Amino acid sequence: MMPIEQNISRAISAEALQAYQENGYLLLPHCFSPAEIDVLSAELPVILAEDTPRRIPEINQVSVRSVYGSHTSNAVFRCLTRHPRLVEPAMDFLGSEVYVYQFKVNAKVAFDGDVWNWHQDYVFWLKEDGLPSPRIINAVVFLSEVNEFNAPLMVIPRSHKEGVIDVPAYNGTVSGNDKSSADRSAWISNLTAKLKYALDRNTVTRLAKQYGIQALKGPAGSVLFFDSNLVHASANNLSPFDRNVILITFNSVENIPVAAGRRRPDFLVSRDHSSILPVTDDAMLSFVGCKPNSGAASH
Amino acid sequence: MMPIEQNISRAISAEALQAYQENGYLLLPHCFSPAEIDVLSAELPVILAEDTPRRIPEINQVSVRSVYGSHTSNAVFRCLTRHPRLVEPAMDFLGSEVYVYQFKVNAKVAFDGDVWNWHQDYVFWLKEDGLPSPRIINAVVFLSEVNEFNAPLMVIPRSHKEGVIDVPAYNGTVSGNDKSSADRSAWISNLTAKLKYALDRNTVTRLAKQYGIQALKGPAGSVLFFDSNLVHASANNLSPFDRNVILITFNSVENIPVAAGRRRPDFLVSRDHSSILPVTDDAMLSFVGCKPNSGAASH
Repeated sequence: MMPIEQNISRAISAEALQAYQENGYLLLPHCFSPAEIDVLSAELPVILAEDTPRRIPEINQVSVRSVYGSHTSNAVFRCLTRHPRLVEPAMDFLGSEVYVYQFKVNAKVAFDGDVWNWHQDYVFWLKEDGLPSPRIINAVVFLSEVNEFNAPLMVIPRSHKEGVIDVPAYNGTVSGNDKSSADRSAWISNLTAKLKYALDRNTVTRLAKQYGIQALKGPAGSVLFFDSNLVHASANNLSPFDRNVILITFNSVENIPVAAGRRRPDFLVSRDHSSILPVTDDAMLSFVGCKPNSGAASH
Repeated sequence: MMPIEQNISRAISAEALQAYQENGYLLLPHCFSPAEIDVLSAELPVILAEDTPRRIPEINQVSVRSVYGSHTSNAVFRCLTRHPRLVEPAMDFLGSEVYVYQFKVNAKVAFDGDVWNWHQDYVFWLKEDGLPSPRIINAVVFLSEVNEFNAPLMVIPRSHKEGVIDVPAYNGTVSGNDKSSADRSAWISNLTAKLKYALDRNTVTRLAKQYGIQALKGPAGSVLFFDSNLVHASANNLSPFDRNVILITFNSVENIPVAAGRRRPDFLVSRDHSSILPVTDDAMLSFVGCKPNSGAASH
């Protein structure tokens, strides 16, 4: 799909790698075909309807905000986490083999989809999971067209170069090791519109004045890679258009979390650290015509 | 400022009038100069800080959402309501002389500015004030640059042709004739993010699919005229950029409210029905160098 250079075996070009390193993100339109996106989208109704602790509601308690960890039970999503168009660039960006640290469907539904306040991702994984370094990357697959009306991801380009911008957590709670409901309430706020490590407003204002803001829009099938220290946010979705994306976080196999004493659930911080062996490029198409969530194929 | 046709004495061209009638809105960039916008903006801190029932907070009770009726006490804003670049097009659009039905500053402040759900304006004035016809128009003056990040007004072009789309109010309360706090709570919800006559989602979805959505952006100094039946909304402002606008509603002098029994406050439905006599085109510049809110000049 992307040009391979003569001397270096990479899925992405030197120019794309440089752009990523400079801006902290790379947006690739038309990465997946409409047929592939249809395969993925067909799984959504079942995934969103499933009553599980991995499903996080919006604060209004009506709509689904996110569903985590579906790749462990759903064959189509498992296939996506191993797709070469995601895994190979991730390996290039991180310079090593990778594994899936976290998987989620973010359903910013029409009318109800709520905000994600300005934040960096890595600080959560550093403070909550003991992740040693920001050698971890997000890949966002657009299942819907993302346009100016349905709350595109807003990023501050180059802000990843600031490293971890420390912020006092809005409460002092740290996730414990038990599975009680009190423990759930400790980590769940990080998944709602009330983020524990949201950036302070003066910092966001300073960075936006220095670097500007970009809204990352594109057709369904686009893929966005972004650095775990890139400052980002998204507004509420007041439009009548859903904005569904899948966000897969790939971690370097050389960057395993060290805080063994703490334990967020596996669907937030995977304990399966085995390197991903990519599937074939046409793997997603093997699901065409399959009944959604059948689990028939096993890539 | 705008071309005048040979045969008809109008402030706006036949093409502009036709575009307005067809789309339900007309956006005129660079209508006011930076010097004029500076004069208007200099008044904002005093207006927003004033503790008055005319000031409406956001639901978070921290930021100011709107301040109504400031043109009755502030010389600069009074001048704006009489400015020929607003009044003359308004007269052309409505085909009669006009008066100020309502004046407000909408301060969609950085980070905190909350949503306006999808609605039409005229239904509020019909049901709450007994306004006979939609022969009334909004003029929005951009004091800030309105861009894709600070929650521009979203409109559904041509939706004004649907006329009044009736919606059941979310509560049955109708404003009474007394000034009690219960009465205040009856009309105040129309001014917050919880609108009484918000459109239902099926209707918005149908109209957006039929007509599309436009986000109306432009530099500070732009003026937007829009029809009182045009379906519109705006998202929350998650950006670090304020989005301050002044919204002046001009009513035809041939369209006086008839529901004398009801009585929303004067700052929501003005009892001064006298025709506006426009000031001179350079009137705003007479305030340059004046102390804000001094009330020195009287246009």
